[in-house]
Amino acid sequence: MEPPKRRRSNTRARLLEGALEVFAERGFHGASVEDICERAGFTRGAFYSNFGSKDELVLALFQATTDRLLEQIEALLPELASQPGSLLDAVLGLLDETVPDRRQWHLISAEFTLHALRDPDAAQALNKQRAMFRESLTRLVEQITETSSLELTVPAEQFVRMVIAVHEGARSQSLLEPDEVPAGSLEHTFLPMVLAAVSRPSR
Amino acid sequence: MEPPKRRRSNTRARLLEGALEVFAERGFHGASVEDICERAGFTRGAFYSNFGSKDELVLALFQATTDRLLEQIEALLPELASQPGSLLDAVLGLLDETVPDRRQWHLISAEFTLHALRDPDAAQALNKQRAMFRESLTRLVEQITETSSLELTVPAEQFVRMVIAVHEGARSQSLLEPDEVPAGSLEHTFLPMVLAAVSRPSR
Repeated sequence: MEPPKRRRSNTRARLLEGALEVFAERGFHGASVEDICERAGFTRGAFYSNFGSKDELVLALFQATTDRLLEQIEALLPELASQPGSLLDAVLGLLDETVPDRRQWHLISAEFTLHALRDPDAAQALNKQRAMFRESLTRLVEQITETSSLELTVPAEQFVRMVIAVHEGARSQSLLEPDEVPAGSLEHTFLPMVLAAVSRPSR
Repeated sequence: MEPPKRRRSNTRARLLEGALEVFAERGFHGASVEDICERAGFTRGAFYSNFGSKDELVLALFQATTDRLLEQIEALLPELASQPGSLLDAVLGLLDETVPDRRQWHLISAEFTLHALRDPDAAQALNKQRAMFRESLTRLVEQITETSSLELTVPAEQFVRMVIAVHEGARSQSLLEPDEVPAGSLEHTFLPMVLAAVSRPSR
């Protein structure tokens, strides 16, 4: 038999996976805890021993995805830290590859953002989670600009915010019109220009 | 008594106004045609003699807003067509000022986009509406680059898509964290850099 800790972590993983599917089909508000349990093959008891609420589960999904993304970015650093342009391209590629399904991922992340705009508790929790992710990315940008003898003419956090804004805005266009806006195309065309515009050799 | 045509157009305007409020409170899916009629003080009959469906009403809202925005942009041209940088700043200002309430507007436009990602008919109608708006903006950009003896190094439509992506992505951050991301701040910081990067004096 599996040790209890491993079993618990498998239960969490399967609940997260099932939830992503159910959310994509029925929307965040349309999907009940019962629906998620049924899809994952667990009882409500199993759900509530892992997550306090549906909101908490969504935030755990975000956390798992951003943790994986940060790990993958860090794995690129030994090779690319001295070439910010290539690193940016590689990171933009990861943004789409790291998530299991771009469409599902966009649906739940856009929906939870809308939920947060109506619910102050959800907004607080989401902002905290997004701030942690943004701070990790900001530290990476700072580390890279040092390694590559560049300096930014805007705060690193502003640049990170811009990358996130372009990615989220472009993803929406690309999902609505996949033939006209291939995934990542706006990001790959314009963000390297932005990076060039805000960086210069450090003195 | 008002002539029938004017009366009909007032009914439409009041239904659109009431709908925007009800959508912002209850969400696109949570707001019924009954709720909208009640808020605007009309019967279901009045609704259906103006709009075929809730989808059609939302698209009419988008149309009215983009028409107003295009009119306002065109009014700026005599003064600013030869100064693309100042014009871009002015247009970015209009993007936020033209809508009666940024938060309401973001909620309904993000929600209808999510709806369209699940409903092919809604996607087709939304894409058609967005394409018309994008084409009007693209023609304006082409006209301005000619007037100001500039040429773009990317197709004008790509630049327009990028402006829309940044605006929609940045608006979401700015509504979630109004103190950290004032309305328009990412757009005003970064889009002039993008414009400078994709334009050069025409030969």
